[in-house]
Amino acid sequence: MNLTAGSPELVLVNGAPADQVSALERGLHYGDGLFETLGCVAGRPRLLELHLRRLARGCARLRMPAPDLAAIAREIAQLAGGADRAIVKLILTRGPAVARGYAVAGSEQATRIALRYPWPVPADAIEGQGLRVRIAELALSENPATAGLKHCNRLEQVLARCEWSDPAIAEALLFSRGGALISGTMSNVFLVRDGVLMTPTLELCGVAGVMREVVLAAARQNSIAARECRLARADLDAAEEIFLTNALTGIRWVGQLDGRTLSQMTLTRRLRTAIAPVLAGGHCAVPEGVA
Amino acid sequence: MNLTAGSPELVLVNGAPADQVSALERGLHYGDGLFETLGCVAGRPRLLELHLRRLARGCARLRMPAPDLAAIAREIAQLAGGADRAIVKLILTRGPAVARGYAVAGSEQATRIALRYPWPVPADAIEGQGLRVRIAELALSENPATAGLKHCNRLEQVLARCEWSDPAIAEALLFSRGGALISGTMSNVFLVRDGVLMTPTLELCGVAGVMREVVLAAARQNSIAARECRLARADLDAAEEIFLTNALTGIRWVGQLDGRTLSQMTLTRRLRTAIAPVLAGGHCAVPEGVA
Repeated sequence: MNLTAGSPELVLVNGAPADQVSALERGLHYGDGLFETLGCVAGRPRLLELHLRRLARGCARLRMPAPDLAAIAREIAQLAGGADRAIVKLILTRGPAVARGYAVAGSEQATRIALRYPWPVPADAIEGQGLRVRIAELALSENPATAGLKHCNRLEQVLARCEWSDPAIAEALLFSRGGALISGTMSNVFLVRDGVLMTPTLELCGVAGVMREVVLAAARQNSIAARECRLARADLDAAEEIFLTNALTGIRWVGQLDGRTLSQMTLTRRLRTAIAPVLAGGHCAVPEGVA
Repeated sequence: MNLTAGSPELVLVNGAPADQVSALERGLHYGDGLFETLGCVAGRPRLLELHLRRLARGCARLRMPAPDLAAIAREIAQLAGGADRAIVKLILTRGPAVARGYAVAGSEQATRIALRYPWPVPADAIEGQGLRVRIAELALSENPATAGLKHCNRLEQVLARCEWSDPAIAEALLFSRGGALISGTMSNVFLVRDGVLMTPTLELCGVAGVMREVVLAAARQNSIAARECRLARADLDAAEEIFLTNALTGIRWVGQLDGRTLSQMTLTRRLRTAIAPVLAGGHCAVPEGVA
């Protein structure tokens, strides 16, 4: 599935069609902002509540004012409306700098940038054999101050994505500098071993993915043992089943990891079935604090 | 010295007066860019060669195309010209995204954003007693992939700068997650002990400051023993003399660190005298690879 294709069809900046932002944007100068990427089906954004909840939490952690969730929801809905399938990316920055330097004046006005992209080509053909995934050479830095956040400091992901150009490779898995398995460049990762589902904890790095939350909730609802824990390279090597999650693609099964072939997909299938209504646009109740 | 005051007087985007950039900027989406901040005196940028050298090295490390240094130098000169004193910030991003996602297409066209800010109020009064400096609570993450670069992923600096609002405190010193002294939020740090000048190595984090290079070269030229080494909290506590460097302010002496008073400024004074011609706009030959 080529998730990188396509230019935006429409961009709203603070609710108005625009294709530019201020050159003083702290988002531009420092990556001082957060983003959400939403899958939209039948004219509506999926999992909107979860995305907005994460965005609001991120603002609090970055000491940004509480976001105008009503305006954000309205703008996302506006972009999603009318399209059978679309991707909406929402960037919320601290806004144009009111003074030079890192200090936050407190009087900044946040900027909302909402972009609608076409939904990429379906990936069913590739998915049949599973994804081909590599191990990244780059190790993610660790910092509890920014861990879990979907912030705009993404140079590590950019550099990790620069490590390969073979279009047959769908994703790379990243370890932290401390040796813990964390995620893909744009996905969370789940392993299965002895019938137990495991996904990395995200206290030191990584992004607390919305689909990760959905899958953990689905596991709970389907009596599948699931653990968030520290996972090392040995756990990855011992995994009988591996899948990746993200808000756009749901669950993607890994068929090859750095040349090793995986064939089991028992829990992957069960969980795919469990979350299918969510991917189709259905409501998903994920209790506060599940992930 | 209030380095944060002032809005830009003039902005050039790719050489033309403009106050906006594309909403598709990878600089905005990912902090996918580099910057330089230059002090300009008597209509000319100081240490231009060193800034351009660092920028070119940064581009190579971020796998960006070699920058158009002639255009960048021309635009910086244009902004510096006519002003007795000014600050010019140059941001170079990978440019507007040509596709969605982290992957670099290779066909991106870099964006040059040059901003001229007024020079802040002189700080001689404050400098007399030395700067008041605190120790940051936030620890910097470590990653050799981005260490040393003046890149646009600056959330850690923003968060560290959020830790205090007392205008009497000029700067905060930061340690890495591994416990090594690294730098201030916007300065490099030097310690003196038993007549030896020491500054942190920057293999794991921090920015390879242009003024840091100048000071190391000046130490060498003045037969002052200087070491780049790993420094811990104990080294900071044992320092007899501490100063901070940055391209705008040169050398600033630390008079108080977290309540502890420092009174010695032997090497600080010698090095200040040594680099004074550079701050006044004179040429500075720093050999390749000094820092």
